[in-house]
Amino acid sequence: MLGLFQRKDRLIVHGEAPYNAEPPLDRLRAAFLTDQADFYVRSHGDIPDLDADDYRLTVGGMVATPLELSLADLKERFEPVTVTAVMQCAGNRRADMLAVAPVSGDPWAPGAIGNAEWTGVRLADVLQAAGCEAGEERHVAFESHDRIAESDTRFGASIPLAKALAPETLLAFAMNGAALAPEHGHPLRVVVPGFAGIRSPKWLARITVQDQPSDNPMQADDYKLFPPGVTAETADPAAGHTIEAMPLNSAICEPARGAALKAGRHSIRGYAIASDRAVARVDVSPDGGRSWAQARIEHDRRAPFAWTFWEIDLDLGTGEHELAVRAWDSAGQTQPAAPDDTWNYKGYLSAAWHRVRVTVA
Amino acid sequence: MLGLFQRKDRLIVHGEAPYNAEPPLDRLRAAFLTDQADFYVRSHGDIPDLDADDYRLTVGGMVATPLELSLADLKERFEPVTVTAVMQCAGNRRADMLAVAPVSGDPWAPGAIGNAEWTGVRLADVLQAAGCEAGEERHVAFESHDRIAESDTRFGASIPLAKALAPETLLAFAMNGAALAPEHGHPLRVVVPGFAGIRSPKWLARITVQDQPSDNPMQADDYKLFPPGVTAETADPAAGHTIEAMPLNSAICEPARGAALKAGRHSIRGYAIASDRAVARVDVSPDGGRSWAQARIEHDRRAPFAWTFWEIDLDLGTGEHELAVRAWDSAGQTQPAAPDDTWNYKGYLSAAWHRVRVTVA
Repeated sequence: MLGLFQRKDRLIVHGEAPYNAEPPLDRLRAAFLTDQADFYVRSHGDIPDLDADDYRLTVGGMVATPLELSLADLKERFEPVTVTAVMQCAGNRRADMLAVAPVSGDPWAPGAIGNAEWTGVRLADVLQAAGCEAGEERHVAFESHDRIAESDTRFGASIPLAKALAPETLLAFAMNGAALAPEHGHPLRVVVPGFAGIRSPKWLARITVQDQPSDNPMQADDYKLFPPGVTAETADPAAGHTIEAMPLNSAICEPARGAALKAGRHSIRGYAIASDRAVARVDVSPDGGRSWAQARIEHDRRAPFAWTFWEIDLDLGTGEHELAVRAWDSAGQTQPAAPDDTWNYKGYLSAAWHRVRVTVA
Repeated sequence: MLGLFQRKDRLIVHGEAPYNAEPPLDRLRAAFLTDQADFYVRSHGDIPDLDADDYRLTVGGMVATPLELSLADLKERFEPVTVTAVMQCAGNRRADMLAVAPVSGDPWAPGAIGNAEWTGVRLADVLQAAGCEAGEERHVAFESHDRIAESDTRFGASIPLAKALAPETLLAFAMNGAALAPEHGHPLRVVVPGFAGIRSPKWLARITVQDQPSDNPMQADDYKLFPPGVTAETADPAAGHTIEAMPLNSAICEPARGAALKAGRHSIRGYAIASDRAVARVDVSPDGGRSWAQARIEHDRRAPFAWTFWEIDLDLGTGEHELAVRAWDSAGQTQPAAPDDTWNYKGYLSAAWHRVRVTVA
């Protein structure tokens, strides 16, 4: 697993086993398409070592024609499709919630996100080939080759059939034109643009069409959004909101938190993302939100699920500055100001204004 | 115009000419489908007095076959469709922004919104019959029979072709099963679910397919969202965000602001709306946002553009209470806390937590 070794000195590692790591923010902001070696890794167990030649995907459940497909079958039978889209962990920016009260899970900075060109085939085409029965209440469940460390079950998750049939939802075998690295799901993963990464399983083994969500712990128990009054002791998983689409978010990537700068003009740069909407405006504040200026934004309008890069030059005088960013989407929606306003004990969907303190000498 | 006379004693009137009025919030919350007589009215000029028998709609511009259609033609040639959807003014809840700094326009309470069953024909079907040319950069412009008081031009607006072709977008001749009242656009109006009311012209006269947005002042100059630092003197309309889809919002309808209550259990009730997303959760606070409880919510899941009603019983002890509400949508998005966070000099898209002070004796 060379890919993994290559990256260990490039990433900030939150855990070795399972392996969880994210890139430094300046490197993340360096390219509109995130290099595989700079792409965050979120694992729930060991990283499987799968042989692409022996690989088989099975498709079953509520389908007329169950399928067993090799990687070559997938590439031959179905139209190749490339989609540029963000992959993002539901726990991205969790660290900001720790300032409010303790939360469970790794303290991700704003680096548990990346943007890639995913190449594969449409999940819809594969489901159609299997004679998938349509129906409003159907779900498409995925089972993977990795085992979840905590529960000793295989990893699994599901998405509603409507999203499985959306043209952007892929079974992907390549990222930025190269085969998936082991830690990114080699040889085949699901890519569900706009949804939290947990719904895009890596090392895919089986697809099952069924009339209810997956009963895998990842789907039934974890990755639920709870109100602020709920704790680990009182949480009822069935009452939590299943995290699928992600909220509007933005982050300052440069300068880094705590940077010591010289007085003068500085380029402030970062990303913004608006789920299935467009980013309409990005406001940057040099003074913790008392005043705002508008950043230049860089879209790829052909790629609605890609992120938006933004940049602004600000004159910063001597002293301490709290830089802040907030995005606005095409529906005129903006982010809440304070981490308190989105706090939940699992630390999911941390999407308040991102603030970075710097000192100017 | 009997409809208009009927409602004058039922509504809170912000202006007589043009006529602008909204219902008291307890009456608004009384029915999931808002009665025509309780539905807010936003006019930019006189209310036209049109005869349904003489009415003609023309369809032209970038189409193969320009059309002229009577109301009977519309009803005979196209499939009748009913859609339940909110209509909402971009200035709904503007009054809350006045607490921050002056804004232009009428000080709407949270009543510049209503939810109705609209019956008509799909705009897409009419455009198809006209042989509308497809194209990413196309816009569908509407011109109406009313004249804008300020500019002495006819009212006009436009929407992107993609939204015009969406199955929910209608040319409507009925509301809740009855012909449109004069003040609601008799005999035909546009209904663009999820978009601000300004994009759903009443008293429709002409539809034009074109390669740019309407140059009518309503489209080119007004109904733009500006950053907080922009004023009437510095605003460049071309740089503002054209308001189309509306952000997540919610309001407390009962008890009323300033109500004097007896100590004990009280039902707190209101509405929430999430543009093209679902309302996933509604939090209600008895103490200005320090603690939150979750309201019961009433959806019509067959109607994704309808509002959500919510209700919760809270024990309120003696003293002053600041009740607050905030909604969460299916993407885990929530509302900003303070009106400062969305303030703009036009007072549009006021969507911070709604707060209502009550006194318990």
